[in-house]
Amino acid sequence: MSPSHAGENSGTVSTTTVYDLAPDCTAEVVEVGAHYHATVNGVVDYGVFVDLADDVSGLVHESELEGRYGVGDSLVVRLVEVRDNGDLGFTEATPDDYRTEVLEQDRSATVVSLDEEVGSRVQLEGEILQIRQTGGPTIFQVRDATGVVPCAGFEEAGVRAYPEFDVGDLVRVVGEVERRNGSLQVEVDSMDPLDDEAAREELDAALDAAAEPYDPDPLVDWPALDQMREDLAAVAKTLRRAILDGRPIRMRHHADGDGMCASVPLQRALENYIGEVNEDPDAPRHLLRRLPSKAPFYEMEDVTRDLNFSLEDQERHGQKLPLLLMLDNGSTEEDTPAYRTLAEYDIPIVVLDHHHPDPEAVEPLVEQHVNPYLYGEDYRITTGMMCVELARMIDPDLTQSVRHVPAVAGLCDRSRAEAMDDYVALAAEAGYDEDALDDVGEALDYAAFWLRYNDGSELVDDVLGIGDDRERHEELVEFLATRAERDRDRQLAVTLPHTDHERLDNGAHLYRIDVENYAHRFTYPAPGKTTGAIHDHQVREHAGDPVITIGYGPDFAVLRSDGVRLDIPEMVSELVEEHPGAGVSGGGHLVVGSIKFVSGKREEVLDGLISKMEDAAIDEDLRSTLLRE
Amino acid sequence: MSPSHAGENSGTVSTTTVYDLAPDCTAEVVEVGAHYHATVNGVVDYGVFVDLADDVSGLVHESELEGRYGVGDSLVVRLVEVRDNGDLGFTEATPDDYRTEVLEQDRSATVVSLDEEVGSRVQLEGEILQIRQTGGPTIFQVRDATGVVPCAGFEEAGVRAYPEFDVGDLVRVVGEVERRNGSLQVEVDSMDPLDDEAAREELDAALDAAAEPYDPDPLVDWPALDQMREDLAAVAKTLRRAILDGRPIRMRHHADGDGMCASVPLQRALENYIGEVNEDPDAPRHLLRRLPSKAPFYEMEDVTRDLNFSLEDQERHGQKLPLLLMLDNGSTEEDTPAYRTLAEYDIPIVVLDHHHPDPEAVEPLVEQHVNPYLYGEDYRITTGMMCVELARMIDPDLTQSVRHVPAVAGLCDRSRAEAMDDYVALAAEAGYDEDALDDVGEALDYAAFWLRYNDGSELVDDVLGIGDDRERHEELVEFLATRAERDRDRQLAVTLPHTDHERLDNGAHLYRIDVENYAHRFTYPAPGKTTGAIHDHQVREHAGDPVITIGYGPDFAVLRSDGVRLDIPEMVSELVEEHPGAGVSGGGHLVVGSIKFVSGKREEVLDGLISKMEDAAIDEDLRSTLLRE
Amino acid sequence: MSPSHAGENSGTVSTTTVYDLAPDCTAEVVEVGAHYHATVNGVVDYGVFVDLADDVSGLVHESELEGRYGVGDSLVVRLVEVRDNGDLGFTEATPDDYRTEVLEQDRSATVVSLDEEVGSRVQLEGEILQIRQTGGPTIFQVRDATGVVPCAGFEEAGVRAYPEFDVGDLVRVVGEVERRNGSLQVEVDSMDPLDDEAAREELDAALDAAAEPYDPDPLVDWPALDQMREDLAAVAKTLRRAILDGRPIRMRHHADGDGMCASVPLQRALENYIGEVNEDPDAPRHLLRRLPSKAPFYEMEDVTRDLNFSLEDQERHGQKLPLLLMLDNGSTEEDTPAYRTLAEYDIPIVVLDHHHPDPEAVEPLVEQHVNPYLYGEDYRITTGMMCVELARMIDPDLTQSVRHVPAVAGLCDRSRAEAMDDYVALAAEAGYDEDALDDVGEALDYAAFWLRYNDGSELVDDVLGIGDDRERHEELVEFLATRAERDRDRQLAVTLPHTDHERLDNGAHLYRIDVENYAHRFTYPAPGKTTGAIHDHQVREHAGDPVITIGYGPDFAVLRSDGVRLDIPEMVSELVEEHPGAGVSGGGHLVVGSIKFVSGKREEVLDGLISKMEDAAIDEDLRSTLLRE
Repeated sequence: MSPSHAGENSGTVSTTTVYDLAPDCTAEVVEVGAHYHATVNGVVDYGVFVDLADDVSGLVHESELEGRYGVGDSLVVRLVEVRDNGDLGFTEATPDDYRTEVLEQDRSATVVSLDEEVGSRVQLEGEILQIRQTGGPTIFQVRDATGVVPCAGFEEAGVRAYPEFDVGDLVRVVGEVERRNGSLQVEVDSMDPLDDEAAREELDAALDAAAEPYDPDPLVDWPALDQMREDLAAVAKTLRRAILDGRPIRMRHHADGDGMCASVPLQRALENYIGEVNEDPDAPRHLLRRLPSKAPFYEMEDVTRDLNFSLEDQERHGQKLPLLLMLDNGSTEEDTPAYRTLAEYDIPIVVLDHHHPDPEAVEPLVEQHVNPYLYGEDYRITTGMMCVELARMIDPDLTQSVRHVPAVAGLCDRSRAEAMDDYVALAAEAGYDEDALDDVGEALDYAAFWLRYNDGSELVDDVLGIGDDRERHEELVEFLATRAERDRDRQLAVTLPHTDHERLDNGAHLYRIDVENYAHRFTYPAPGKTTGAIHDHQVREHAGDPVITIGYGPDFAVLRSDGVRLDIPEMVSELVEEHPGAGVSGGGHLVVGSIKFVSGKREEVLDGLISKMEDAAIDEDLRSTLLRE
Repeated sequence: MSPSHAGENSGTVSTTTVYDLAPDCTAEVVEVGAHYHATVNGVVDYGVFVDLADDVSGLVHESELEGRYGVGDSLVVRLVEVRDNGDLGFTEATPDDYRTEVLEQDRSATVVSLDEEVGSRVQLEGEILQIRQTGGPTIFQVRDATGVVPCAGFEEAGVRAYPEFDVGDLVRVVGEVERRNGSLQVEVDSMDPLDDEAAREELDAALDAAAEPYDPDPLVDWPALDQMREDLAAVAKTLRRAILDGRPIRMRHHADGDGMCASVPLQRALENYIGEVNEDPDAPRHLLRRLPSKAPFYEMEDVTRDLNFSLEDQERHGQKLPLLLMLDNGSTEEDTPAYRTLAEYDIPIVVLDHHHPDPEAVEPLVEQHVNPYLYGEDYRITTGMMCVELARMIDPDLTQSVRHVPAVAGLCDRSRAEAMDDYVALAAEAGYDEDALDDVGEALDYAAFWLRYNDGSELVDDVLGIGDDRERHEELVEFLATRAERDRDRQLAVTLPHTDHERLDNGAHLYRIDVENYAHRFTYPAPGKTTGAIHDHQVREHAGDPVITIGYGPDFAVLRSDGVRLDIPEMVSELVEEHPGAGVSGGGHLVVGSIKFVSGKREEVLDGLISKMEDAAIDEDLRSTLLRE
Repeated sequence: MSPSHAGENSGTVSTTTVYDLAPDCTAEVVEVGAHYHATVNGVVDYGVFVDLADDVSGLVHESELEGRYGVGDSLVVRLVEVRDNGDLGFTEATPDDYRTEVLEQDRSATVVSLDEEVGSRVQLEGEILQIRQTGGPTIFQVRDATGVVPCAGFEEAGVRAYPEFDVGDLVRVVGEVERRNGSLQVEVDSMDPLDDEAAREELDAALDAAAEPYDPDPLVDWPALDQMREDLAAVAKTLRRAILDGRPIRMRHHADGDGMCASVPLQRALENYIGEVNEDPDAPRHLLRRLPSKAPFYEMEDVTRDLNFSLEDQERHGQKLPLLLMLDNGSTEEDTPAYRTLAEYDIPIVVLDHHHPDPEAVEPLVEQHVNPYLYGEDYRITTGMMCVELARMIDPDLTQSVRHVPAVAGLCDRSRAEAMDDYVALAAEAGYDEDALDDVGEALDYAAFWLRYNDGSELVDDVLGIGDDRERHEELVEFLATRAERDRDRQLAVTLPHTDHERLDNGAHLYRIDVENYAHRFTYPAPGKTTGAIHDHQVREHAGDPVITIGYGPDFAVLRSDGVRLDIPEMVSELVEEHPGAGVSGGGHLVVGSIKFVSGKREEVLDGLISKMEDAAIDEDLRSTLLRE
């Protein structure tokens, strides 16, 4: 039974309404008890058959007729019965006092077609994505397979309409399509549950199909990355589906060069898709947040903020809790306690990382986990390389503007991947020689340093060169890269004279620098990068020889090596054991790492560290420095 | 005289308007000089009596009549006189050219009844709470005893309408009730002063009655707190009245466990009441701010920010300046210079604190000052305990969701109040054993640490467990408490080996730890809490023996003791005197405190401090550590 | 040809429209091919002359007539020709099936007159200042010589209307004037390019005239500043023109006393003018930002933030990129790399500074550069003194409220300008004695310290005393100045006992203080101001004698001197050369300066510095301290 004119029919009966059905109406609009204008289309022994509309007919039994009618005659009838087979049974009934109302069919509509239905009553089926109470109506964002439209239900000013529905419910909305401040919305006349399993499955299937990602050709031919494509496509689908589902995406990324090369193109791709799906031009801003994280793991400060702001958005704007997307970050056991809590809040998690993963700890807690180590590869496949492919699966039109990005990512992370040559060649096609790529990486790093906690989206687009204005991009990169170089040279000028040199027993050159007392503080480059610059300098001085550099402050040391097999995680484990109460922690790879300790034990820990370095094997192939002529 | 049709009546007289009064009109709507349709209801020697409406009649003197009329005849009259007794005097006067306008009575309405008056002209009396100039009309928020409604006055786009009125003025508004974006507002036709003292007193009395707080039974039977109930009720009334007056509330609270147990339930209660009083669903967010303060006194940084943001809200949104509510904070002489300045800005102040107060300095400057010391009690009645009762006086429906909070507050502040057992028992009814309460306190502290300056309302509701989802609450507390414990254990592991022990002459064990050089920095727990953890550990080791712990950094020391009468404020006074130029300051209780000094004088100050500790009396009852089996 | 009814005329021809011109229509509204109601006003041999409106007539040639008509007869005609001389040629043509539409003249209007045109169709000519896509229409902010009005173009919900136009284009808009939420806007029917050079020049000339600044009498008679007036007027015009052009202004100022005395009155003047030009009451907030900078040069952190937020405002709100206004800041070569980049973004720059400038580096990159050194004067003309005059050229009504500000600026910067006496006398007229001025300066400094990065506009207006409430101003200044003095005294109490004294060979007293270890940290006054307070104290102790004070921390030293010619920039240059690897940098004047170095080389650098001081000449006139009785 249709609820479409229940309202008019009920209430105090002063004047009765007699409905005049438009010709295209179906039986859905009639309801028992209501009056209709009818035309006789056949006369039989036991009564007359009447038409209410082209496809709505029924019988007025002889016993229910008051007058005598021939074919073509008009009369007013009341619907008394809808039989199981759908046949309608009427009685003749002309009210003393009535008014006629034309009844249009509630046209079934899809969101994408609403533009043509302004002023009409339509019937729409979909899922409630968001419920926001205003001072006036309650706004339900309803999504069908074709898009999302706001539906305004009014109960009383500021009072929740249709409180029986929640986000996630499937409903049939009947209402008038109107343009409000130029945007389309549906003014709800009725909202009914649509809880048959079939409807949900149908919608789900339609959305599933819509979420299907693109499958562009890979930027370069690289089996190591190709084997991961299927899983990247699955992530692309999850992200597209989240957007179709009106679920915000909270993107956490390591705030270094690779992390930005990963997150910025993906941000662009997701924003484009959000814009495509949503009418609201502010939707990309409301539904996607890119958040830089200092460390390559999920710090408590970030966890608490993510949770708090997500709950706030839910409370204030009726948004769903977000999907958490971890980029260049999130693969380790360290991250799992937070994941466990987010699970309790129904916040799905997707991880793309190239740090050494702990899949057994992580995978039970996340939707997807993509990491080159899971395919027998390693950190040389950077997150930026993966994410550029991922971004293209979401929006393949980005290809031209991002094809230089994997090369930048690789250089930032000093990747020695075999595909680097191809990536660099591809970047050359886009007009970047290797120096230009280095400059982009350095400018990115420099801008991120000064932007500090701000994501700086607009500026970073221009630095990375995925914006529209090439000239600006080049000028901006030159400015930032030049300043970065100047600041790095200034740091080198002040630190090199205080860098102590010794020759270890294994033949390696060891350089030590106190970056607390002999470097400019609170400026670019920070201690880690300063140590790296010193190391690169010394490696060039001793071309080919093994070199280790330690930059230390009161409670930390940064390590870099070339040509020596350090295995820093192993060294940290040993130091932890050998120096209880020194608060040693840290990590890294074979050639890059960092160690923390309490300042009172610095000498002891550094001495222990160096004695381990003396025992380390020489290995010419292990390099952290990209030497170029 | 009614202003209701002054506008139509004046102006260039091309066509005269003759009013046809609706039957229910009163004499209020007529005015001298205007024309009316009238019906003769009596003929006397000296003229005819005419009816304009059921209750509006008057005389047309014989000399003022042009024709002869019998009862029931119609004529047009002009009002020439309203006598002191209210009698109306008319002249017959049919204009050559006139149009008739039906005049409805301006129905006296109250805000709460406006819903039923949409489309009607009403008359409303109330006080202006806020005046906001938009690019179009001027929006006056007008409040009567039943609620607040926006009234839109239009002079010219962007030009202030009715500039003669200010916030705080009492007015009679006549206008049409309309629904605008679903919210009710009154489109102002006229606004007149209502400056008779009686009206203001009447409104004031009505608001006063509406502000009356609830009087729920205390959560536990506790004479020490019961004696404070009357004053708490007065505070509840002040806060409810501020909300009725449209005055924002700026809540400053000490950012520790007790401060959050005090402020969070109160925030919930006040938000509920703001929502009840205001139509605008965003009102709770605009009219209440909860702001954590690092220190338990009113720091200059907070004062300047409070003042600046309050002035900004006044400037931008036409809001009143706020009421300042100080929680677990604000009782000392240190706070008074700021109070004096705020007074100049007409910012009322209410203080609820359990730190040692200076009532003579504070009370002349604040509206209310509630502190257990003023009742012969002490800090064992925590601010959280007081505020839970206060919150229930504002919104008693909170009772179920906050009944475990006083126990959490007590444990956070290590309160040894006699009612603690009752509070703990009450929490047990709510499903919290003592470990669970400890965990909530620790989780609260841990979340606050990582949220830093953010109030984190949504998250903190879940941590404290006053939200709806018990399962989330428990999972979140477990996550946070486990991490907090892990971090505390990590701090203990690194600090305990570097904690120096000596036995003082008075038999006390003294432990000293350099938390700058032998603790992890910039992480949880911070130096104060780290020192506390070490102290608790040592007290457990020496069960029963007197123990003192000093955690020191370059320019500060944190003190904890068990079983020794330290009187830290006294020791600080002596150190100030004995070490001029050491910049000593600080404070605390008998068993907990902190001292600051300039780093160059650290050794001298610490030596002086310890020599005082050697002279301190042993007192087994003085304890800062809650020992449990 | 008018586009005014092109739309109605085209499309599928079911019913033809015959236009009935309103009497005041001009020939602009007619177009070839359209039908019109006409009246014969003359009969000649070769046809009839017809009137379409008072000023629109033409000929229907005899060959084009179907019937015979006399004067006064009506007929329907179609326009077939507009001759070069403007004569109209018609044919008689009565469509079989037509509807009549009254055609009103599109009234040429200016923005300032739109208020009287609500409901009418108007034609407006102007420049597009901003294009913002909403979920509904596209909003074009169109500016003519009289003001700015939003024009709403609608293509499809959320779809950019008139995509052929960009910000900066000159257009003719035809549309209906409506009041939307009380604000005026034009609902666009048509938008056409207006690219004739003459129109642009005309608009430009009108804006140029409107931008002309005021020319109030200078506050004091002072030739040194008077010679700069013409250039200040040019800056005033640039700023007014930026506002007329809808270009936001981003004001960067040194966050010290002089910087605030410069920026706050100018902010007030610019806000007033923005409010005058724009309808939107939020425009002053959106179009002007005042941003304090820690250093007196353009730091990378500020550059990146300025660029990023400007791009964000452009992206989100379709705003133009801003004009950058540098105050008490920006004159040096250090600033130019950033300027070069901003130029690429088309961000004009205006500099007002009194730090030693490098005009050759700066001037090619900025629109205007005003600095007393360029006129043979020096830093004694403070930026505050210049900007108060500048503010008065933009809004002369400010005069009364800002006349004490130059004196405050001068005292803050210890200016010994000859006009200081006149400025102080002028402030006395405003009710400020010299102590009161000092207090305002100190309060300003103190408030800025605690507001940290916040500009604190509302509070700072009250502190500086350019707000309305004198009583509040005085109370607030007293509160802040008293607290500042208390904090300064507390710093003196702790530092003076640790200030080392020695007598240099040249007779100067040298005082040295370790402000890291012997001053309170992270509070007011910071190390630089603490050193100044110690110096002022010692100068008073040794009235007349030469005194130098050095306050040093781990990696910096602050210098002050009285009666000695230090030439700090020169000393820094020498130290850089003599101590390679010490990372020396710094700057200052003859009597005030600061030096940075790496902490490991502190002793060496300080020793070098002091040996230079021993060689410095005694010069009694060189003073940094204002001694008063």
